[in-house]
Amino acid sequence: MSQIYDRVALIGLGLIASSIFWASKRNDNSLHITGFSRSEKTRNIARNIGLCDEVADSLEDAVKDADLVILCVPVGAMEQVMLKIAPFLKAGATISDVGSVKRAVINAIEPHLPTDVKFVPAHPLAGTEHSGPESGFASLFDNRWCLLTDHKSADKTAKNKVKNFWKGLGANVEFMDADHHDLVLAVTSHAPHLIAYTMVGVADDLGKVTDSEVIKYSAAGFRDFTRIAASDPIMWRDVFLSNKEATIEILGRFTEELFDLQRAIRTGNGEKLLDYFTHTRSVRREIIEAGQDTDAPNFGRNFDSELD
Amino acid sequence: MSQIYDRVALIGLGLIASSIFWASKRNDNSLHITGFSRSEKTRNIARNIGLCDEVADSLEDAVKDADLVILCVPVGAMEQVMLKIAPFLKAGATISDVGSVKRAVINAIEPHLPTDVKFVPAHPLAGTEHSGPESGFASLFDNRWCLLTDHKSADKTAKNKVKNFWKGLGANVEFMDADHHDLVLAVTSHAPHLIAYTMVGVADDLGKVTDSEVIKYSAAGFRDFTRIAASDPIMWRDVFLSNKEATIEILGRFTEELFDLQRAIRTGNGEKLLDYFTHTRSVRREIIEAGQDTDAPNFGRNFDSELD
Repeated sequence: MSQIYDRVALIGLGLIASSIFWASKRNDNSLHITGFSRSEKTRNIARNIGLCDEVADSLEDAVKDADLVILCVPVGAMEQVMLKIAPFLKAGATISDVGSVKRAVINAIEPHLPTDVKFVPAHPLAGTEHSGPESGFASLFDNRWCLLTDHKSADKTAKNKVKNFWKGLGANVEFMDADHHDLVLAVTSHAPHLIAYTMVGVADDLGKVTDSEVIKYSAAGFRDFTRIAASDPIMWRDVFLSNKEATIEILGRFTEELFDLQRAIRTGNGEKLLDYFTHTRSVRREIIEAGQDTDAPNFGRNFDSELD
Repeated sequence: MSQIYDRVALIGLGLIASSIFWASKRNDNSLHITGFSRSEKTRNIARNIGLCDEVADSLEDAVKDADLVILCVPVGAMEQVMLKIAPFLKAGATISDVGSVKRAVINAIEPHLPTDVKFVPAHPLAGTEHSGPESGFASLFDNRWCLLTDHKSADKTAKNKVKNFWKGLGANVEFMDADHHDLVLAVTSHAPHLIAYTMVGVADDLGKVTDSEVIKYSAAGFRDFTRIAASDPIMWRDVFLSNKEATIEILGRFTEELFDLQRAIRTGNGEKLLDYFTHTRSVRREIIEAGQDTDAPNFGRNFDSELD
């Protein structure tokens, strides 16, 4: 395959950017990748672990020769970064991002886009509960989805190149309308994250049950919530603030349904509970059949050896 | 170690009973274990896969020679089973159970307990989303907690023997008051399960987002909920109906807190969200340090090979 880009710049060096670098090197070692983080500490870590072919000390140096610039910063920081890099972007370059919300990112980037620069918003649906420059790995995007949103300033060539770039990282790529993306993600990601954060907060805050009891007996279901609730706090603050309407809509539906099940418990309506639980079990089956999770019990957790 | 019991009977042959059998055989092959299920199909499967040294066709045959009888049936079926086996229990035998709720099980068993039989309620905090006689495995209880509840009809010898039996299966054992157990489990298990069931139900029920979108893009957090919401429906119906008060109390606290965070989103209170999420992240760290979960990203999920 002929090379899609000669030079790529990654702005922000966390879990996603570092995984893009390692996945890209696995795919095509000749692509030149420059990284930038506003934190000197992060830049030094990146240099020490060989993250990026070059780590730039300024945004200007990072982006000026890049054919593709990927903004890997929290959603709330996108506009500020875009304002700073706009004067230095190369004519014909493409801007992309990895934000978990798309309408807000489009609103942040588009007004500042130089006329000779294309914009192709992207969101790889992949991550772990870890964050920072050392948390990335080459296989993070393998067989995961990367959603690109159709956008007026993106021409077909630019969109195809970003699409092929993500395919090269191992991802499956689809295009989706930005507002629909934000609603779908509110269901599959944003609402579940807020719910997990809430449940972990409640457990930690109960007077009658001690913290140490919650920790000790977490294996009964709660520990799965704590993994989700361990995700990067700044990233998630920005996700909720920039996808307010859809998140609140889904949470409203959730509360309505929770009250309904709570009422079934209170009134002893076992039939309703059994029907509901039987149905939700089938959703799990579909997810496994779609290749989106493992069928191994407990996600195939295997960690007893660490404890011996 | 001298043998604790000569003969054990397992009533009900699902995930927990089958794991007790395999863990027990791993520990001490000379212990004789008889199994019983009211389903002929389950009994035949058990015979085919070598589950139990002997599979009895009646409750009487299953329990009459047993030194320890463990009730491994849903909480709602405990009283009925106890009524049926009470006339056949051997003098000096011990009854135990594996129910996820303790007060309701004590209320179901105690009134029917023959005077020469001891009762030691137990709850192993271990399981997977799979169920049935074929889902058990020997390491299920390794380094997991088994909670025994203090109970007036249990003498010290009977309690110590049940404790040592569970240690032999790989578990760590603690004693806890029944009502406190039910509250702790409402936090670490029952409320999280109901919340997961609810979120999966909502996602499956939305007009604007298709089922196939929910399935395809589940990796963004939702799939963790679907694993919990795939647990045995009958078992969970009975858990909620028999631990009503504690579950509803925790759900009340949860909803209150969820509304508070929802309000922070609506009003754009980023500081509150950031503080909250930073704190919940630290809970995860404590769980990993306590040896209750793996630190591997995404639980160490490794399933791409299945998809190739």
